[in-house]
Order: sequence, then structure tokens, then C-alpha cells
Amino acid sequence: MLASPRPVDPNFVDRVRNSFDRQGFMALLGATLTRIEPGSVDIEVPFRADLTQQHGYFHAGVTSTVADTAAGYAGYTLFPADSSVLTVEFKINLIAPAQGNRLSATGRVIKHGRTLTICAFEVYALSAATPDFGSEQRTLCASGMQTLICLHGRMDG
Amino acid sequence: MLASPRPVDPNFVDRVRNSFDRQGFMALLGATLTRIEPGSVDIEVPFRADLTQQHGYFHAGVTSTVADTAAGYAGYTLFPADSSVLTVEFKINLIAPAQGNRLSATGRVIKHGRTLTICAFEVYALSAATPDFGSEQRTLCASGMQTLICLHGRMDG
Amino acid sequence: MLASPRPVDPNFVDRVRNSFDRQGFMALLGATLTRIEPGSVDIEVPFRADLTQQHGYFHAGVTSTVADTAAGYAGYTLFPADSSVLTVEFKINLIAPAQGNRLSATGRVIKHGRTLTICAFEVYALSAATPDFGSEQRTLCASGMQTLICLHGRMDG
Amino acid sequence: MLASPRPVDPNFVDRVRNSFDRQGFMALLGATLTRIEPGSVDIEVPFRADLTQQHGYFHAGVTSTVADTAAGYAGYTLFPADSSVLTVEFKINLIAPAQGNRLSATGRVIKHGRTLTICAFEVYALSAATPDFGSEQRTLCASGMQTLICLHGRMDG
Repeated sequence: MLASPRPVDPNFVDRVRNSFDRQGFMALLGATLTRIEPGSVDIEVPFRADLTQQHGYFHAGVTSTVADTAAGYAGYTLFPADSSVLTVEFKINLIAPAQGNRLSATGRVIKHGRTLTICAFEVYALSAATPDFGSEQRTLCASGMQTLICLHGRMDG
Repeated sequence: MLASPRPVDPNFVDRVRNSFDRQGFMALLGATLTRIEPGSVDIEVPFRADLTQQHGYFHAGVTSTVADTAAGYAGYTLFPADSSVLTVEFKINLIAPAQGNRLSATGRVIKHGRTLTICAFEVYALSAATPDFGSEQRTLCASGMQTLICLHGRMDG
Repeated sequence: MLASPRPVDPNFVDRVRNSFDRQGFMALLGATLTRIEPGSVDIEVPFRADLTQQHGYFHAGVTSTVADTAAGYAGYTLFPADSSVLTVEFKINLIAPAQGNRLSATGRVIKHGRTLTICAFEVYALSAATPDFGSEQRTLCASGMQTLICLHGRMDG
Repeated sequence: MLASPRPVDPNFVDRVRNSFDRQGFMALLGATLTRIEPGSVDIEVPFRADLTQQHGYFHAGVTSTVADTAAGYAGYTLFPADSSVLTVEFKINLIAPAQGNRLSATGRVIKHGRTLTICAFEVYALSAATPDFGSEQRTLCASGMQTLICLHGRMDG
């Protein structure tokens, strides 16, 4: 990860939040932005029965969606104000069943370039603290990489 | 693609359909199975405003979800009756904006093995026929590959 | 694959060949360009003991190298004369042991764009015709995808 | 990465080294194992003109080869004595030109399972210390992920 990425747009937090809020699909999933820092963004989504695959876990599509979106906005924090971000491609390994009370995806920039930006992401399944188990359980359920392209001169909104 | 994959389970169509119907997330997306053949499956999802990203196109997460699911069930057509399917990993290139009246994902088996099965998928954005353009427009918006694992002896339902 | 990609540079065959000939690594592998067509290129490499992994098959690195190179030059056939090509990323599934007398990699363009070009590739392991088996055996040993970037205005040589 | 992976085979260093030494391709590249620890392995390869692509940098195939091999043996450190390792697939982003006196690849296990193991890798291009620049330059030139399969009961040698 970048040691200390410096956003060229001081307004990057609002810019990311505004873009996220225009994604109808994030509202449908009940996903929220829980952290926006230079080169790194977290997204969380609470469990619901209509987000599941056939065994009752979070669907890999939900995991992939929040992973791609967290990494995309991680890159977008470093983009100029008058730009848009598109995912060129991503690759995801689904490492463990996404079973828990909520998913938490972290995206982070590995290499920021003028045209292309490379990100990595991890998704954790979180289980609530219980009288039996005490603290919250945190299981790595997906890990992957993403390539973004910056469209200069095309405002996102 | 396999020349003529032969399902070991003659009941593979019902098995795939039953598994799909237990995925809460497919219902949330409004996705339907539109073709189930040995080693190949299609899924379609009509456009809705709550399936979009920030520019009003289908969200890459929707594209990825139907791609992964179509390819997963393409593999599952060839699995034995008493097995489950899990996605190990997939990689997707988002080739063009997913703009249209509906998405159509095709998954197909490239190599079927006892433990691992490799699939490819394509996703098309379809625009309705219009007086101006005549026939339906069909744009390749995503292409990718997937690795599945077969869990023998674990019924899906 | 593109229905009928038209190279903007009529001299694309020589341009690809000249670039390939400057790759010291292709000479080390004993690899040769066996087909150069618009949007599609083949590379072959005969078996040698110093190209193997620990079980005596072609090393996955050799398979990956010829796959990446064939796909990169497939894209480069469609690039302008005064440009260079770089691989942004690739993903490869190693589907079967790469066992045979030679490897044959085919790269082909899926989507050609001004900045980014997406390719697919397959690698086959070929075994010589024998009195017992008659015709040559051809086994798909790898399949994958690649993203290329076109550097405009930077001659390759 | 695993907090503290414990190899089940106390002889894992020799097992990895013996397997590496049977790879004819590692000798051809001049590659050496420079670190073998539980769940993590480094491989280095010095620059030679016959390892280059058309611009005189290390060929992406060399980068990919040492990345895949380092990650494969990182996984293999955790495998049982009577097993073999095969790469199922890998994905690599080529982040910067691989220009330097040598390449150094690090593979590390992200998730170790009985059948499948997921690894990540990074490749650095290293430039020698000079009177002008003082210390060695270290540039991240590639990053990626890999899926391995463990073949139980099949000795590697």
C-alpha cells in the first residue's frame, strides 16, 4: 500500500460520499460507507435474507459488489475533482463462507497512476459478540485485486 | 468449451432450478434462469433504477453477480446429484458500460474435473428493438473466468 | 472475438515480428511466432529439459510467458505504428499438465479500445503423431485473459 | 497472511529446496531460493540480456514465473511430506517496468486449506547501490494472487 497518498482534491471525502449516494444498488443492499481515508475506504452491509445464496450465507455477488465498490472508491479518493472512475477488471478469491451479522469490505490503493490505479481488497464476515464467545468474530472471507481507470475531465455527478 | 458434456445426474435441470430458487439475492435482483443446458446456463436481469451505479448504468456488482452465478450453475449441471458447488475465485473484465433494458449472462464450462471445474462467462447488455434501430442491440459488457469446487456428498438443499 | 478487426497499420506483421525479435527471452525459450493475423497471434515453443518444472512438464512460467506474449502481440497487431504495448495484468488457469513435444499459445483480441485492449488466450500441449495414436494429440493446458495498454506516440523499437 | 502457520512437515525447508532444484527452468533463469520460512518464500533472479522483453527490461514472463514459483513454494512449506503442489491459477498486475539489477519475488500464504491454498505475491526490481543514490532502490513491479491445490499422497520427487 502507498505509504502516504496525498489526495489532489481536498474535497475527496464529500466527492466519494456523493458518488456513493448516487448508486441505487448500494441503497438496495443496505450498504454504507464506514471509512473514507486517502487511498483506503471501508463499506459495510448488514445481513438480510434477501442477500443470500442457496446455503443461507451472503451471496458471493454481494461480497464481490462491496469489494469492488470499496476498492473503486479507495482509488477515487486520489483522483482529481473533475474525473470519474471505472473498474477495468477485478479478481476475487472467495476464501471462506461469508457467514455473519454483517460484511465489511476494505479497499486500498497499491499503485496510483495518472491513467490506471491498482487496488487490493479484503472482505470480512463479522459475527456479533455473544455471552458465550465474548468479542466479535472476524473471518476473512474474500481477498482480491482490481484495476481502475481514471477518466479525466469527466465529472462524476 | 466441452464438445458434448454429459451430466451424470439426469435431473440436473431441476437441481439447478431448485438451488437458484433458494438464492434470496436472485429474487432481490429480479434475475431469472433463462436457459439450462449441460455445461451452459443463462441468467437475465431486467433494468431497475435500484440496480445502478453512479452514472445510471447497471452496477458492476450486478454484472459480476449474474456472471458468477451463471457460470457456477453451468458447472453445477455436470456435478453429481449429492454435491454442492462453491466458487473458488473469479476474474471479470468490465469491457463496456452495462447500459440497456436488461443484462444477459452466459456461463459455460471450459474444463470439468472431479474436484475443480473451470468456466468462462460473458455478459451482454441488451437494448429493446425500436422503430429507429429495428432489431435489439447486443453489447458485450463483461467477460471473465471462474474456478469452481465440487463438494461431493454434500447435498445442496 | 472481434468479427473483423482492421489494423490501422498495414505494416503490422513486420512490426510485430521486429518487436518479438528484440525479446531476448523468446530466443532463450526457443519460441517462434507461427501465425500473425489481425487480432490474433500464435507462438510455439518446443520441449526442452531446461523448460520444466519439478515433474518434468513444461513449467507454468513457460506456459504463462508464451500466453502473455501471444495475447500481447495479438493486441499489438491492431495498434498504430507509433505505439508500444504493455501488459497491465493477466490471469491464467492452468487446466492440465503441460506435457508434450511442444506448446502452442493462441492470443486473440476480445475488445480493442484506444487506451485499453482486452485479450483472451489458450495454450495447448501438442504430442507428436505416433504409429500407435496416429494423429497429433492436442490438450488444452491453459486458458486466460489479459488487459493491455497502448502507449501512443512511443515507437516500440 | 497467516499469523503463525505451522508446517506439519518439520523437513519442509529441504523438501522445498529439493523440489526447486528439480525445476530445469529455474536453472535456465539463474533463479535462486533466498528465503524459505513457514508460509513464505523468496526467489531472486539476476538481470541478463536473455531475460528481457523488447525494451530491455525483465520480460513479464520472467516476473510471472518467479512470482508463481515463490507463491507455490510458500504454500508447499505448509503441505504434508507426501504431497505435491500444483498451481490452479494466478493473476498478476504488472505495476511498473521491471528494470534493475535483479528481481526479487516474495510469495506468502493468505489461507491454507486441506485441498486449496490461497497465496499472494509481490515482485520487486532492485537496483544496485551507487555513489550517487547511496542505498539500493526497490521498486514494486508486480503484485498478484494465486490458487494452489495440494495433491495428497503423491510425493513430489
